[in-house]
Amino acid sequence: MRVDVQTTNQSYQVLIEPGIITRAGEEIKKAAPASSYLIIVDENVATTYLSIFLASFEQEIPYYVVPSGEASKSFSQYESLLDYCLQIKLDRSSVILAFGGGVVGDLAGFVAGTYMRGIRFVQIPTTLLAHDSSVGGKVAINLADGKNMVGVFHQPELVLYDPNVLKTLPEKEWRSGFAEIVKMGFIADRAFFEWLHLEVTDLKAIKQETLIQFIAKAVQLKAAIVQQDEREDNVRALLNFGHTLGHAIEAELGYGAITHGEAIAIGMRFAIRLGNRILSHSIDGSSFEKWFETLGYSLNVPPELSATSLLTRMKVDKKASYQNFVMVLLDQVGQAKVYNVAVDDAMLVLKQELGES
Amino acid sequence: MRVDVQTTNQSYQVLIEPGIITRAGEEIKKAAPASSYLIIVDENVATTYLSIFLASFEQEIPYYVVPSGEASKSFSQYESLLDYCLQIKLDRSSVILAFGGGVVGDLAGFVAGTYMRGIRFVQIPTTLLAHDSSVGGKVAINLADGKNMVGVFHQPELVLYDPNVLKTLPEKEWRSGFAEIVKMGFIADRAFFEWLHLEVTDLKAIKQETLIQFIAKAVQLKAAIVQQDEREDNVRALLNFGHTLGHAIEAELGYGAITHGEAIAIGMRFAIRLGNRILSHSIDGSSFEKWFETLGYSLNVPPELSATSLLTRMKVDKKASYQNFVMVLLDQVGQAKVYNVAVDDAMLVLKQELGES
Repeated sequence: MRVDVQTTNQSYQVLIEPGIITRAGEEIKKAAPASSYLIIVDENVATTYLSIFLASFEQEIPYYVVPSGEASKSFSQYESLLDYCLQIKLDRSSVILAFGGGVVGDLAGFVAGTYMRGIRFVQIPTTLLAHDSSVGGKVAINLADGKNMVGVFHQPELVLYDPNVLKTLPEKEWRSGFAEIVKMGFIADRAFFEWLHLEVTDLKAIKQETLIQFIAKAVQLKAAIVQQDEREDNVRALLNFGHTLGHAIEAELGYGAITHGEAIAIGMRFAIRLGNRILSHSIDGSSFEKWFETLGYSLNVPPELSATSLLTRMKVDKKASYQNFVMVLLDQVGQAKVYNVAVDDAMLVLKQELGES
Repeated sequence: MRVDVQTTNQSYQVLIEPGIITRAGEEIKKAAPASSYLIIVDENVATTYLSIFLASFEQEIPYYVVPSGEASKSFSQYESLLDYCLQIKLDRSSVILAFGGGVVGDLAGFVAGTYMRGIRFVQIPTTLLAHDSSVGGKVAINLADGKNMVGVFHQPELVLYDPNVLKTLPEKEWRSGFAEIVKMGFIADRAFFEWLHLEVTDLKAIKQETLIQFIAKAVQLKAAIVQQDEREDNVRALLNFGHTLGHAIEAELGYGAITHGEAIAIGMRFAIRLGNRILSHSIDGSSFEKWFETLGYSLNVPPELSATSLLTRMKVDKKASYQNFVMVLLDQVGQAKVYNVAVDDAMLVLKQELGES
């Protein structure tokens, strides 16, 4: 399955095919020919899939292994990688290959976006969640007090997605990725949302055909939004549905304590409930909640967190401006909009979620 | 005097006016209105001009002082600045003001280009050399082994240039900046080169009118090149005339041991001599050499340096690709071109310059 992504200055393909990493070298050389490559790879992926990936090149390719987890999106890791690029003499015509989940994509993408003021890169995502970050060109690292606070917009030359690689993911990683898939239905395509609801009743037993279909659909929907607004000046902000609270929960718990998608799922329930309180229409969130609980999600805001701390984070989230507290809410399933939210309303619903009220 | 710069996605003005920093606030609020600003300022400039600059705003503006000198273009300074941006809650609609020489422009510009994936910035250059870096959007920091190796292209919203501020510059800073002015004549405008040669015979006694005129002309010439090729895919490379050896000298001596422009002046003499050796035409470099020596430049390659080490650096300079050794040479005064240079020829001329042959 192939999805074409078109941005202001660039177009590229997302290829979703079982077994594609066994012939990755060929695809990469075709779409992004280069005198030299560097693979940046997550340590888990390195032990399981790196040899297959390397074998597909029929030549030696240097690689750099980074520890798994969000902590790798640090300034020290970023600087070490850039030093290594220079040491192995990558030049302006070289290509970086990001082989791993979202962390590797973000880190390697930011290295590629800034080394010599930007060289090309290719994404080979290895998690379900990374379907999201691998399309749209947002790359970043973290500040001590803010996730993804430092980055650029840098589009890949090609995205290779091998569903076979996903088979070995732990279940919470399936939940993490699937929440972002469902989010696309919520904000942009009601029929897709309903199809997912019918089709996916057990994350451990998804048919390969279904998997490929929903990844492709989510990528298409995201690409359509990114095409309209690469730099998040307007419609792209809708992709943040569920993220305002989701990010705050991730930060308050400490990164890695909860997966991104599981935090976003909590944020989506909150956004639906907040919308029902402050907008003139009402959305039935209960069938979504039941479905997600069946899939193993916990939709409660972790009770050890405080509403005040969460709300402080939500206001400083970069999707907000400090003067206005903005959030993405649903007008209906399949249609979202950015709303100004009064801090008092958000606080009230948040306290209800936490059983504090 | 006003120069308009047009790039792919943006246009902005360069205002060159004596006393303009006394009304900088007004100009900045007009061209780049924002809810919040941050001034990033060089410590020398902070002691001399910051109070005047701040007074022009009629409101409190936070500022962050960085040590003078190339060492501030480090990862640790970059990270500290970004932490500070978050701490004072700069958001996506904030504007960073880079008040200082090239170091501050590069550092503050890279902060602006990557904080929250890019916020706006304004350049207020305070050295003659910074006329060059403040136009064209190249911003960067240094790796331990490579100057300007990490950066982005990020165009300012406005450039405010106050010739009065230049009066207090030490003479070597005049030489540093003036070499880049003359470079523009060499690569793009013979009449400008000849006019400079006639008009400027003593860097300590330049008439203000002449100063404004040549800054504006150099900015115009550079802007014309940047407009054609923002990302240095072709014609912009001509701006590197004199820089291949110049950068190598700066790196070998250790940054700060020689000013950028003084190193570039040495590189220009070398490029002319190398061109005369390997091209089918010949350029009379002697009048340029005499003129520059009168102005206080030393055009000899520092004798403590080795040709081999310099050449190794020249080959890894990011303007070269590792497979081909490329350099900008003159076809005639006012016209430059990128040439492939054989390593042996470069070595020979370099050894002559060093008196090693």
